[in-house]
Amino acid sequence: MSTGFFDGISKVAYEGPNSDNPLAFKHYNPDEVVMGKRMEDHLRFAAAWWHSFAWEGGDPFGGLTFERPWHPQDNMERAKLKADVAFEMFDILNVPFFCWHDADIRPEQGSYEGNLRTLEEITDYICGKMETSKTKCLWGTANMFSHRRWMAGASTNPDPEVFAFAAATVKSCMDATHKMGGANYVLWGGREGYETLLNTDLGQELDHMGRFLNMVVDYKHKIGFKGTILVEPKPQEPSKHQYDYDAATCIGFLRKYGLENEVKLNLEQGHAILAGHSFEHELAVAAAEGMLGSIDMNRNDYQSGWDTDQFPNNVPETALAYYHVLKSGGFSTGGTNFDSKLRRQSLDAEDLIAGHIGGMDVCARGLKAAAAMLEDGGLEKALSDRYAGWETEGAKAMLNSDLDSITQRVLAEGVNPQPRSGRQEILENYVNKFV
Amino acid sequence: MSTGFFDGISKVAYEGPNSDNPLAFKHYNPDEVVMGKRMEDHLRFAAAWWHSFAWEGGDPFGGLTFERPWHPQDNMERAKLKADVAFEMFDILNVPFFCWHDADIRPEQGSYEGNLRTLEEITDYICGKMETSKTKCLWGTANMFSHRRWMAGASTNPDPEVFAFAAATVKSCMDATHKMGGANYVLWGGREGYETLLNTDLGQELDHMGRFLNMVVDYKHKIGFKGTILVEPKPQEPSKHQYDYDAATCIGFLRKYGLENEVKLNLEQGHAILAGHSFEHELAVAAAEGMLGSIDMNRNDYQSGWDTDQFPNNVPETALAYYHVLKSGGFSTGGTNFDSKLRRQSLDAEDLIAGHIGGMDVCARGLKAAAAMLEDGGLEKALSDRYAGWETEGAKAMLNSDLDSITQRVLAEGVNPQPRSGRQEILENYVNKFV
Amino acid sequence: MSTGFFDGISKVAYEGPNSDNPLAFKHYNPDEVVMGKRMEDHLRFAAAWWHSFAWEGGDPFGGLTFERPWHPQDNMERAKLKADVAFEMFDILNVPFFCWHDADIRPEQGSYEGNLRTLEEITDYICGKMETSKTKCLWGTANMFSHRRWMAGASTNPDPEVFAFAAATVKSCMDATHKMGGANYVLWGGREGYETLLNTDLGQELDHMGRFLNMVVDYKHKIGFKGTILVEPKPQEPSKHQYDYDAATCIGFLRKYGLENEVKLNLEQGHAILAGHSFEHELAVAAAEGMLGSIDMNRNDYQSGWDTDQFPNNVPETALAYYHVLKSGGFSTGGTNFDSKLRRQSLDAEDLIAGHIGGMDVCARGLKAAAAMLEDGGLEKALSDRYAGWETEGAKAMLNSDLDSITQRVLAEGVNPQPRSGRQEILENYVNKFV
Amino acid sequence: MSTGFFDGISKVAYEGPNSDNPLAFKHYNPDEVVMGKRMEDHLRFAAAWWHSFAWEGGDPFGGLTFERPWHPQDNMERAKLKADVAFEMFDILNVPFFCWHDADIRPEQGSYEGNLRTLEEITDYICGKMETSKTKCLWGTANMFSHRRWMAGASTNPDPEVFAFAAATVKSCMDATHKMGGANYVLWGGREGYETLLNTDLGQELDHMGRFLNMVVDYKHKIGFKGTILVEPKPQEPSKHQYDYDAATCIGFLRKYGLENEVKLNLEQGHAILAGHSFEHELAVAAAEGMLGSIDMNRNDYQSGWDTDQFPNNVPETALAYYHVLKSGGFSTGGTNFDSKLRRQSLDAEDLIAGHIGGMDVCARGLKAAAAMLEDGGLEKALSDRYAGWETEGAKAMLNSDLDSITQRVLAEGVNPQPRSGRQEILENYVNKFV
Repeated sequence: MSTGFFDGISKVAYEGPNSDNPLAFKHYNPDEVVMGKRMEDHLRFAAAWWHSFAWEGGDPFGGLTFERPWHPQDNMERAKLKADVAFEMFDILNVPFFCWHDADIRPEQGSYEGNLRTLEEITDYICGKMETSKTKCLWGTANMFSHRRWMAGASTNPDPEVFAFAAATVKSCMDATHKMGGANYVLWGGREGYETLLNTDLGQELDHMGRFLNMVVDYKHKIGFKGTILVEPKPQEPSKHQYDYDAATCIGFLRKYGLENEVKLNLEQGHAILAGHSFEHELAVAAAEGMLGSIDMNRNDYQSGWDTDQFPNNVPETALAYYHVLKSGGFSTGGTNFDSKLRRQSLDAEDLIAGHIGGMDVCARGLKAAAAMLEDGGLEKALSDRYAGWETEGAKAMLNSDLDSITQRVLAEGVNPQPRSGRQEILENYVNKFV
Repeated sequence: MSTGFFDGISKVAYEGPNSDNPLAFKHYNPDEVVMGKRMEDHLRFAAAWWHSFAWEGGDPFGGLTFERPWHPQDNMERAKLKADVAFEMFDILNVPFFCWHDADIRPEQGSYEGNLRTLEEITDYICGKMETSKTKCLWGTANMFSHRRWMAGASTNPDPEVFAFAAATVKSCMDATHKMGGANYVLWGGREGYETLLNTDLGQELDHMGRFLNMVVDYKHKIGFKGTILVEPKPQEPSKHQYDYDAATCIGFLRKYGLENEVKLNLEQGHAILAGHSFEHELAVAAAEGMLGSIDMNRNDYQSGWDTDQFPNNVPETALAYYHVLKSGGFSTGGTNFDSKLRRQSLDAEDLIAGHIGGMDVCARGLKAAAAMLEDGGLEKALSDRYAGWETEGAKAMLNSDLDSITQRVLAEGVNPQPRSGRQEILENYVNKFV
Repeated sequence: MSTGFFDGISKVAYEGPNSDNPLAFKHYNPDEVVMGKRMEDHLRFAAAWWHSFAWEGGDPFGGLTFERPWHPQDNMERAKLKADVAFEMFDILNVPFFCWHDADIRPEQGSYEGNLRTLEEITDYICGKMETSKTKCLWGTANMFSHRRWMAGASTNPDPEVFAFAAATVKSCMDATHKMGGANYVLWGGREGYETLLNTDLGQELDHMGRFLNMVVDYKHKIGFKGTILVEPKPQEPSKHQYDYDAATCIGFLRKYGLENEVKLNLEQGHAILAGHSFEHELAVAAAEGMLGSIDMNRNDYQSGWDTDQFPNNVPETALAYYHVLKSGGFSTGGTNFDSKLRRQSLDAEDLIAGHIGGMDVCARGLKAAAAMLEDGGLEKALSDRYAGWETEGAKAMLNSDLDSITQRVLAEGVNPQPRSGRQEILENYVNKFV
Repeated sequence: MSTGFFDGISKVAYEGPNSDNPLAFKHYNPDEVVMGKRMEDHLRFAAAWWHSFAWEGGDPFGGLTFERPWHPQDNMERAKLKADVAFEMFDILNVPFFCWHDADIRPEQGSYEGNLRTLEEITDYICGKMETSKTKCLWGTANMFSHRRWMAGASTNPDPEVFAFAAATVKSCMDATHKMGGANYVLWGGREGYETLLNTDLGQELDHMGRFLNMVVDYKHKIGFKGTILVEPKPQEPSKHQYDYDAATCIGFLRKYGLENEVKLNLEQGHAILAGHSFEHELAVAAAEGMLGSIDMNRNDYQSGWDTDQFPNNVPETALAYYHVLKSGGFSTGGTNFDSKLRRQSLDAEDLIAGHIGGMDVCARGLKAAAAMLEDGGLEKALSDRYAGWETEGAKAMLNSDLDSITQRVLAEGVNPQPRSGRQEILENYVNKFV
C-alpha cells in the first residue's frame, strides 16, 4: 500500500535525450552496455537516507522548510513511515542501492541501549522491505557528529567514555550493515578534529583514532563482513580542522597506523573543493595508491565556503571523475552515492525525484564520455608519449643510481635538456570532443 | 670597503620598546635570556638572499621597480657586489644566518658545467667573506623552478634528462652548503606537481620524487654532511598542484618512501595559509611526528590567494607559532628564516633594513610571549586536565581492547557521557594576557 | 530576584592588566578617559540577544549543545525568563546597550497578528526591566530569514504577500525599537539575494528592495524616530548571493535609490572577511562616504568559509578598526555590538561571561592603541606627506583641466615622474609600536 | 610574405563536430545563422595582443619559457615582426577583431615623447596591415600597470605628475584606437587601488579616478570617437585591493561620478571568480543596469587564487554566460575578447592556434545552447510564472504604498503567505538539455 507521498509520480523510465518529460531519464539507461558492462553495474547508484528523508530544510540561519508526513522524526512509527517512503523512491528511481546513518533511520533515544534497540527494530523492518525490493545497501555508517555527546569528537574525544560509546555505536552499525548485506562500511569523522589547538592534543587524538580504526578492521574480520571499510576525507566543517583532511592526509594516516591494505577512501566532490582540490585530483591520488573505494557524488558551489551538497550538474566535470574511476578499474564494492540534497526552497516530492534524475543523467553522460575517451585512447597515448623517455634502459638505471654517478654523466655528456610542449590546450580540446 | 648601498645606516641596536628610532630594535635583544637561552640562540634568524637581493620588484603584472647597483644580475662581477652588499646587511642587522638558492648567488649560465663553475667561484667568494663575518649559513638550496628547463618539474619531469640535470644540480648545491658549513639543506619543489592531470602520471612522478629524495639522503651521508635535510610544503603556485601540499601530505610521502627518520619539514606561514591551515596547525602536525625542522617566517595576506611573502607583523600569531616551536623543544639545526620580501613600492635601502627590524621585533615579542605562557603553564595544565580521563588504567586498557568488550561494558554500566565545556574563550583570553 | 543562571558570578570589575582573575576586565575601564571621552562612551558596547540567549549551539551538522532553563523557546513564560537572564548578564558585564531581533525575544506564533501581540507583550516586559537598568537599546531589527515564509526573500520575494508580511513585520519592530528608545534600527537581508539566477529576476528584486527601504525611511520620519537606519552588508550565507554584498555594493544601492543621506552601514568583521576584504577596508570605504554607522564586532576564522562569529581576540586588528572609527569622528548613534557567539562546546555560564570580557578587553586595547596613534599623528603625517603634491595650485588646476591640455604640458615639460618609496614596512612597524 | 612562424599551419576551417583534426573548428561556423544572425556577428571574437604575442611565459616563480623570433621586445623592428605574426594568426583563425595595449605593440621608451612617437609609428604600421585584412580593432587600451612609474597607481597616484603622465598616455591610446576605427576603448586599473590602507587616502584617490574618467569621456566626445568607453572590474592582483572590484562596485562608482550613461563594463570570467562571483552573476548585474558592454572570455582555475587566464573550456558555463548576453540584446559595440593565455608549458605555434580554436568552439557551443534556451522559452516562462503575483494591480499599488497601510491590510486580511517550491533542480535539469 502506497504512502501517498509520491502520488502522481510514476516509475521513471528512460526516454532518450530528446524527451521533454522532466520526470524521465534522458541519458541513464540501466541496461545499456558501456565498455562491456551495463550502466547500472558501472555506476552503482545509491540514494542517501539523510539528505532525501532526514534533512528538514534547515540551515545555519533558518529553520526547516520541508513539512513531511514523517516529521518530527522522534518516534518509531514515523521512522517506519519514512522507510516506506524511502523504498517507494528507490522503486520510482530504480536505484540499485541506498546508504544510511543510524541517526537517519531510528529516532535518537538518549542512551546506548535505547539507540541499539531502536536500530535493531528499524533495521529488521528495513530488511523486511528489502525482501521485496531490488534495492540493496551500498553502505551503512554511524552518525557520531550530530548529538551533543559527540561535540568534542567520537574516537578522538578527550573523554574516554565517549570513545567507549563510539566503539559500541560503530559495532551496532557494522552489525546492522552486515545484517542488511551491505557492500561497504563508511566512517566519516565530522567531529574528529578540533575547534582550537589551544585545548587539543593533536598527537594523542590521532593515536586514538588510529587505534579505533584498527578495532573496526578487527571487528570486520571477526564477524566475517566481506565489505570494504571506507573513510571519507573532508577538510573542515563542522570542525575547524578535520583530521581526515583530504585523500593524501588520509592515506598518510592509514599508512602510519598500518591500515593501508585494509581501508579505502570514499571521496566526495564537495569535500575535494573545500580542501582546495579538483575532484579528479582526489580520485587520482587515491587511485595511484590503489585506495579508490567509492564516491559521494554531488557538487559544491565554487563560490561558497561551506558544504553545499548540490546534485551534480556539470557533465565535463563528471566525465573527468568517471575517467579516473574507469581507468582505475571501475568500482568493485563501491558505487556512486548521491550525497546531494535539494535546495531548501525545493519543497515538492517532484523536486526530490527530479534532483535525482538530473544527477543520474549527468553521471550517465559523464560515464559514457569517459568510456569513449578510454576506448579512443587519446589521453593514454599522450601520456605514454610524454613519459616515453623513462622506458629506456638508461633512465631506469639512473633511478637505481646516485647523485655522484648521475653528475658525472651530466658533465661528461653535457646533458642540457630542452623543454617540450605540455600540450595542455590540445588535450583539453580533445576532452571536449567527448562531453 | 663599503659598497655604499647602505650609506647613512648604522648597525641596528636594541633601544627598547619606547624608542622612536625606526632603525632600532625595540624588542629583539640578542643577549637577553629567555627560558635559559639567549634570544639569538632561540630564534636563529636568517636573511634570505632571494627576496633581499635577487628579487627586483616584479610581479605578474609589472616589471622591476628596484634599481640596484648589482642589477642586471647576469655577470660575476655584479654577483660579487651583491654578496658584498648582503654581508653589509647581515652586519647591520646582526643576523646570525643567511639562506640562498644557487640562482640567487650566481648568474645562470645555460649549462650545468657553467652553473657549476660559477657556483664554485661565488661560494669561494662567500666563504672568504664568512671568515670575517659572524653570519653563518642556515641552509642552501637549489632553485629548480625558475629556468625554463624546469617548467615541467625537476625530479618529477617527464624527461629523464631533466631528472639527471636536477640530480647534478642538487649535488652541487649540497656540496656548496657543506663547504659553507650550512646547518641544513632544503628542497622546495615549486614545479614538482602538475598544471593539468590530463598530461600527468601522478603515481610515476611521486615514485621518482621519492627515489630522488632517497638519493639526496644517501649523498648527505656519503659526504658526511651533518645538517638536516628539509622539505618545504606548499599547496600550489606556481604549479596548479604541488606534491608537497602541506605538512600532513609531506609526512605521508616521507613515510611511504621510508624517509620519516631522515627528513624534516621547513614550514612557512604563507604556505600554511594558502593550504587552508593556520601556521600553528602546520607546526603542531610536524611536531606531533617529531618532524618540525625549521621555519620560513613571513605572513600571507589573508585576502590574497597567492604567496605574498610579507614580513610578519602580527604578534598574537607569532606567539602561537613560537609556542609550538618551544613546546617541541626549540630549534636544533633549524631557525627562523625571513622568507619575506619588501612590497614592490618599498624602494629604499632603509625599507630593506626596516622590514627586517620589524620582523625580528615581532618574532622576539612572539618568542617572549610563548616562553611566558610555557613558564606559566596555564595551557599545559588545561590540556592535562582535559585529557585526564585517559590517564586511568581503565581507559588505557580500553585502547588495547576491542569493539565487543567495550560494547559489553557500555551496556553493562549504562555508559552515557555528559559533555563538558571546551573553554575555548577562556583559553583565548589567557593567551591574550601574554601578547 | 535572581534567576540563578549566573550563580557564583559577580559583577565584572576592572582589575588592570596584571590581574589573574579570568572574570575581571584587564583593559576595559569604562570611566577611563581616552582622547577626552570615557571609554564607555567611545566603545558603546552592546550584547546581542540572539547569540547570547537564543542560539542553542546547533550547527549544520549537529543539534543543540546548550541546555538553558529557557529552552525550548516556544512560550512567553520562558521568553520572560530569557529576558530576566539577559538583564542579569547586562548588569554583570556593565554593558551600556543590547540589540535584538523580534524572533530572539518572542516565540514565533505562525501569524502576523500573533507575532505582533507577543512582540508587544515582551517589549513591554523589557521596557519594564529597562526602568531599573542602565542598559539601553542600541538597535532592534526584524528576523526575516529564519522562518520558512522568508525562504525566498522578504522584500525581494517573488510573492507580493511576503513583501506585505515583511512590511508589517518591520513596522512592528520599528515601533518596538522606538518604544524602547533605541538608538538605531538595522536591516540585514540574509535572504535578500538568490540561490540560483535561473529562477531570479535580479533587477526587479533590487527595485523592490529599494522601494521597501524607502518605505522604511518614510516610516521613521512619520513616527519621529530619531535613530539611524542601518543596513548590514554580507556577501552570502545563507543565500548564495546577498544583494548587500559589501560596503561598496550597499553604497551604490543606496545612491541608486536616493537613500545615501538617509541610511548608513552597520559593518561586521566576519562579513568583511567573507567578502574578501579586511575589516578596516570596509570601515574606510564607509567612512569615505560618511556612511560609517555602527559595527558588529566579532572575528571570522580566516580558514573557514562561513560566518564563524567568534569573539574578537586579535588586538592589532581591532586597533586598525578603531583607528578608522576614531578618524571618522567616532560613533554618534552607533556602537560596538558583539555579534559574537560562544563556540558550541563552551557550555557554561562562565564561558558566556568570559567571552564578552575577552572581547571587551580586546576592543579596549584596540581603542587605546588607535587613540595613541591618532594623538601621535604619525600615520596622518605620512599620508599628508605622500599626497602633498596635490596641494599645489598646479595639481588642483589639472583636475579641472582636460586630456589635451595636460598632454601639452607633459610634452612641453618632458614630465617623467620618478617613483618614491611607499614605506609600507616602516608604517607597519610604526603601528606595532602602539599595539 | 610569411614570417614563417606558423609554417605548416593552414587557415582553420569548420569541419563539424565529428572531425578529428585538432586544427579545425568543430562548432564555430562563422556563417551559420543563430537567432537570425551569423555566429560571427553574435560572438565578435577578438584575439588579444598581450597574451598571444607579448607574454613570454613568465610567472612569479619563473622566467620566460617562450622563445619567439620577436623577443626580446625592445625595438621597433621586432615590434613590426610581432605585428606581422599577429595578422598571420588573425587570418589563420579568421577572427574579426583584435585588442591591444600600447605596451604590447610598441617597446617602452622611458619617456612620454618616446612612447608617443613609437606608438604612432606602430599604429601606422598596423593600420597599413588592416587595409588588406578583414580583422578590425575591437578595443585599445593603455597599459598603466607594468612600468615602474605606475607602481602606486595611474590616475590615483599620490604624485600628480603620474596623473599627468597617465592622462597624456590615455589620450595617445584613445587617438590610436580612433585612428584604427576601434569599436570601444577600455580602461583597466590594475594599480588603481592600494597595497596598504596605511599609506592610502582612499577617498581622495577615488575622487581623482572619477575626475579622470570624466576627462576620458569628455575627450571621447571632443574627438568624435563613437565607440563605447568600458571599465573592467577586478577585485585585486596585482593590487591588494582594486577600486574597480566587481560589477556592482563599478556601477556604484560610475553613478557617483555621473558616468552611468557614458561608460559600460567589460566583464571577465576570471575576474568574476576572483571576486567571489559566478560569471553569469556579473553579467546579470551589469545587464540589469543596461551596462553590459563587452566580455573578456577566459576561465579561472577554481582552485587557484590568482588570475589564471585560461582558455574557456566548460560549455555549461559559457552557455549561461551567452544566455545573459543574448537576453540583454546581444553585443552592440562589444564582443568576445580572448583574454586567455597558453599555459607556459605550451611552447609551440600549434598550441597558440589550438588554444584559440578550443575557446572559439566552446563559445560557439555556448551561444547555440543559449539561443536554443531562449527560443524554447522555458526559463523565461518559469520566471514570469514565479513573479506573476507582481503583475496584479494590488501588488503594484502596494509598491506605491507605505508601511502603515500595508500593515493594516495584513492584519485585516490575515495575510499569511505559504512558500512555493523554487524548482532549482528542475531548472538546472532543463538547462542540461541544451548543453
